[in-house]
Amino acid sequence: MNHFGRLFQINIFGESHGKSVGILIDGVNPGIPLCEEDFSNDLLRRKSGGIGTTPRIEDDKIIIESGVFNGFTTGAPILLRFENNNTKSKDYSNLVSQPRPSHADYTAKLKYNGFNDYRGGGHFSGRLTLGLVSAGVIAKKILKDFKFNTKLINLNGEEDSSKFKNMLMDAVSEKDSLGGIISIRVDNVLKGLGEPYFDSLESTISHLLFSVGGVKGVEFGIGFDGVNLKGSSFNDVIIDHEGHTKTNNNGGINGGISNGNPIELKVFIKPTPSIGKSQETYNFKEEKVSELVINGRHDAAIILRAMVVCEACVAIALCDSYLINKAYRED
Amino acid sequence: MNHFGRLFQINIFGESHGKSVGILIDGVNPGIPLCEEDFSNDLLRRKSGGIGTTPRIEDDKIIIESGVFNGFTTGAPILLRFENNNTKSKDYSNLVSQPRPSHADYTAKLKYNGFNDYRGGGHFSGRLTLGLVSAGVIAKKILKDFKFNTKLINLNGEEDSSKFKNMLMDAVSEKDSLGGIISIRVDNVLKGLGEPYFDSLESTISHLLFSVGGVKGVEFGIGFDGVNLKGSSFNDVIIDHEGHTKTNNNGGINGGISNGNPIELKVFIKPTPSIGKSQETYNFKEEKVSELVINGRHDAAIILRAMVVCEACVAIALCDSYLINKAYRED
Amino acid sequence: MNHFGRLFQINIFGESHGKSVGILIDGVNPGIPLCEEDFSNDLLRRKSGGIGTTPRIEDDKIIIESGVFNGFTTGAPILLRFENNNTKSKDYSNLVSQPRPSHADYTAKLKYNGFNDYRGGGHFSGRLTLGLVSAGVIAKKILKDFKFNTKLINLNGEEDSSKFKNMLMDAVSEKDSLGGIISIRVDNVLKGLGEPYFDSLESTISHLLFSVGGVKGVEFGIGFDGVNLKGSSFNDVIIDHEGHTKTNNNGGINGGISNGNPIELKVFIKPTPSIGKSQETYNFKEEKVSELVINGRHDAAIILRAMVVCEACVAIALCDSYLINKAYRED
Amino acid sequence: MNHFGRLFQINIFGESHGKSVGILIDGVNPGIPLCEEDFSNDLLRRKSGGIGTTPRIEDDKIIIESGVFNGFTTGAPILLRFENNNTKSKDYSNLVSQPRPSHADYTAKLKYNGFNDYRGGGHFSGRLTLGLVSAGVIAKKILKDFKFNTKLINLNGEEDSSKFKNMLMDAVSEKDSLGGIISIRVDNVLKGLGEPYFDSLESTISHLLFSVGGVKGVEFGIGFDGVNLKGSSFNDVIIDHEGHTKTNNNGGINGGISNGNPIELKVFIKPTPSIGKSQETYNFKEEKVSELVINGRHDAAIILRAMVVCEACVAIALCDSYLINKAYRED
Repeated sequence: MNHFGRLFQINIFGESHGKSVGILIDGVNPGIPLCEEDFSNDLLRRKSGGIGTTPRIEDDKIIIESGVFNGFTTGAPILLRFENNNTKSKDYSNLVSQPRPSHADYTAKLKYNGFNDYRGGGHFSGRLTLGLVSAGVIAKKILKDFKFNTKLINLNGEEDSSKFKNMLMDAVSEKDSLGGIISIRVDNVLKGLGEPYFDSLESTISHLLFSVGGVKGVEFGIGFDGVNLKGSSFNDVIIDHEGHTKTNNNGGINGGISNGNPIELKVFIKPTPSIGKSQETYNFKEEKVSELVINGRHDAAIILRAMVVCEACVAIALCDSYLINKAYRED
Repeated sequence: MNHFGRLFQINIFGESHGKSVGILIDGVNPGIPLCEEDFSNDLLRRKSGGIGTTPRIEDDKIIIESGVFNGFTTGAPILLRFENNNTKSKDYSNLVSQPRPSHADYTAKLKYNGFNDYRGGGHFSGRLTLGLVSAGVIAKKILKDFKFNTKLINLNGEEDSSKFKNMLMDAVSEKDSLGGIISIRVDNVLKGLGEPYFDSLESTISHLLFSVGGVKGVEFGIGFDGVNLKGSSFNDVIIDHEGHTKTNNNGGINGGISNGNPIELKVFIKPTPSIGKSQETYNFKEEKVSELVINGRHDAAIILRAMVVCEACVAIALCDSYLINKAYRED
Repeated sequence: MNHFGRLFQINIFGESHGKSVGILIDGVNPGIPLCEEDFSNDLLRRKSGGIGTTPRIEDDKIIIESGVFNGFTTGAPILLRFENNNTKSKDYSNLVSQPRPSHADYTAKLKYNGFNDYRGGGHFSGRLTLGLVSAGVIAKKILKDFKFNTKLINLNGEEDSSKFKNMLMDAVSEKDSLGGIISIRVDNVLKGLGEPYFDSLESTISHLLFSVGGVKGVEFGIGFDGVNLKGSSFNDVIIDHEGHTKTNNNGGINGGISNGNPIELKVFIKPTPSIGKSQETYNFKEEKVSELVINGRHDAAIILRAMVVCEACVAIALCDSYLINKAYRED
Repeated sequence: MNHFGRLFQINIFGESHGKSVGILIDGVNPGIPLCEEDFSNDLLRRKSGGIGTTPRIEDDKIIIESGVFNGFTTGAPILLRFENNNTKSKDYSNLVSQPRPSHADYTAKLKYNGFNDYRGGGHFSGRLTLGLVSAGVIAKKILKDFKFNTKLINLNGEEDSSKFKNMLMDAVSEKDSLGGIISIRVDNVLKGLGEPYFDSLESTISHLLFSVGGVKGVEFGIGFDGVNLKGSSFNDVIIDHEGHTKTNNNGGINGGISNGNPIELKVFIKPTPSIGKSQETYNFKEEKVSELVINGRHDAAIILRAMVVCEACVAIALCDSYLINKAYRED
């Protein structure tokens, strides 16, 4: 459902072409300085990746509706809202008859008996990630010393980042799209975070990441590549009293609990499903396969925008674990 | 924490060398036939993979403590318990001074201020998966027509299954261990399961999978390999009125919701961390790196036992979504 | 915390003098007709009780921010928001030094280290009940045939309702306030609602009721008066095949589960703590007891407004149970 | 459902005549000394009230199945189990045809389609409170300095406790039963406990209390009697820097948050529904009203046993709030 977290609780809402989108956050400690500008940097990171699109710039203005007073969080729920001023009067009804492949068009219609707001993806729109990014900003404030480092390490099979720009230009001109792999590393993580059995750090982090549209794989540490190593090579041997390890194949997590080494993970984001290129897919009205051309401008690689979103997911999961951990620590 | 699920709720408990391990399941509909023998097959699948070990055969006897009457579920919580009769009087205290690399020994000690039951891994022991497998049996009963197909598709980099047996024998003689990749496919899945935003099927499935010790990667459909495809190739085009798709790169899930095609996913299990081979790792008592030899017999490839565990995780997540879906359907 | 419900989930937010107050509701089935006017009647019931006050009429305009499309619920979260246009620039800082007796002023300051928005009660303001009333409207739509009947049966010890008007007028002129007892009766309740052990109907109903400021007592059926009856008189004997009972001392609930007879309960609402009359109470700045006069106009009996709020609480609890019940019923 | 709590989580299970009853507790901090004897006193308080019955003495032996190692809690879930050795082979099938008035017999059958274990009340048996009492013992350990004082202040309308004994003897000889009112007072409560909006202390305390069979009314402070006071008399004026108040009509809670004064509440427990006296009630098999005589020995006043159960509920709710409060406090 649209609620996540035990103590740092987020509730997401909105549709792409409704009145607004946003997030309601409960469980933020009182006394944290917070204002609209605090969100600017991450909201900009989310927007700037829109190669191939005209981002809805004016819509990224955050409104703090509640939970902040005199520049500080109050301890009451924080409602962050983004108005959808710039919604085009475009006709989306063809996507109801002919759902976009790899998109939520078909499943949303099924699940909600056709009552879903299908315009621009509705509740499944990437625009919902504005709320996630904003919650991530607050989570990172609470996590003070934790350092997040998020990188695009693979674009459509290519790992040399100097080639990414040209690849993106080519994708735009081909009216196609590219997927990729994001790497996230968190340094200065407090030891002991994560709540076995079911709230292992890997569990809560992956839970949030897989909520984001387009995420189709998550791996920690060396991940799937570790299949080539035997135990004697895979094991991260501890080398000092602080628990530092020689390697970090486990990505800083053992038994679901942070071990003080950097948390490292990778996220696979599939290529943007909405492409300009013609596709042959089923038309439920015509009851046959026919050509689908999705008009308008499309993100050549949604992954560029997704980087800060994935980082936010990791921060939110860690923040919840951080608060839980405080509750169980001795006074 | 040790609780998961909205309507099909599981609560896991126990330690390897305590009195018992098991699971408490709430939210099982009344009227489902259930007896001890129903668990035999899956419990046997979990046990039989123990190459390199002497499985604690006598301990896998399930006790249904509550929630079943006259051979049917009553609707009250079902407590499933396994007694730990066969716990050896082995001395584990050396692992407190010198935690096993890649294991929860170090993080558990940290998190619980040294009060954790460290014998045999305690609450982090693979023995806890007895409960998961048992809950999976009930989930699969509720999911009636869903068909689960779980396979080992990669062992230590090798995909040819005919070679696995020899590889395992070699690992035993080398006192080393092997990781691998499990593939799970579910057919006949009801359409419309999964609850956006945060309870996407990928989210709840991965949440449970990453709770299992040793799981370090989860991917749906084509997964990370999909990075090589552009959108025009990745997209699963719909070919008929039932929503069947030509390819299944999305693994049967769009927007977090089942689309009626098979759910397909892969799970990476790292090599068993406990190996007989000597390792150099930090000794916190001696305050220096020194040799660690873990005595006893070890699983050469815990992945053999983990297959049915991972299948259970998928079934539990689907079962919870199935019940939620019923609640929101029109009467 | 500010979240309640398993399937019909509500999340409340806002402060009296912040930008807005409202409620975010998740778990509403798609396809329910819903528009702003649907809320008018109950919002009016909440407002009209404001004897002794000038209600902030213009602020009760509901904005449906999300979850409704083409006049029907979509299945996505419904954000209902009320803007606080009419907030006076009054100075509330004296209440920080000298908290109002029986109010949340003191405890809120304590709990939130002084960061709480104290203006007009902030997050503890009665204005928050706008959200509850609105969620109640939707709950009652889902509960279709259930009939709610809410009455004021006792005002300041008086049970003759013809005297209430004069009593209220007297209270206004005395600058004092009155408490009372509300009776709620629900007819046509589906049998079998309520989820033992901990989600008995009495538990979830009382949980919500006691969240409302001023509620200090809840009793079901005959309630505390039943102490005078022995078992042989208290027991509600069943008289027909439908489970009708001769008496309804249990208030339609046995073992936490609805038995098909009317659900009957009573709620005690204390007198409005904010009164115009002078009070002697501690001044934390002056560090001594001194006179407190709270300026402005006050509700002579908040209970008049609380009636529809309490009814909403009962409806929300029943709606959640109703959805859960559907999930566990046989197909 | 059978789960309660955010951080101090309890899960109750079992049936009166099944293999066992008990409770699974998650979220207990590591390092708390705990052994079987710690439960003796409260289990004895629960048992000794059984006037009119032969308590199943031998069944109150607690088994700590998990979560305790070397005499201390480990931080892992604690399973507390009580075996049902003493279940009589009595025939309960007549209660299926002719459900006991005021009992869960009828509603349980309805809700669970007749699959419920009806023997001795099954999952609705008072025997389930063994688990609650045990969880309360642990909660009170965590709450260290809080002092609980629980009294019977009214038995069948009589407030003079010196008459209670004779009243009970009379009830036994009349084969009837008595209800009453329990008062609970908690001193030395930490200020600032309780989580608005929905987890007010009154909400969580009443939620747990109303889960207990027989509880039909809960009031805080002066409770329903406060209806006779006007605001100027009801208000608890603060008299010193510590927040002490002259009166305690609010029962130590304002805005749902503890204010440092004693928490005071009252609980109404209806007369035991199972009585030896003949009752005329509907027989579903015979399809007419007929005489019901419930054989065996009955509790004349279950309230005597319920006192420690209600105290446990209050302790559990406070303990959960206490842990949450720690999480949000500044380091």
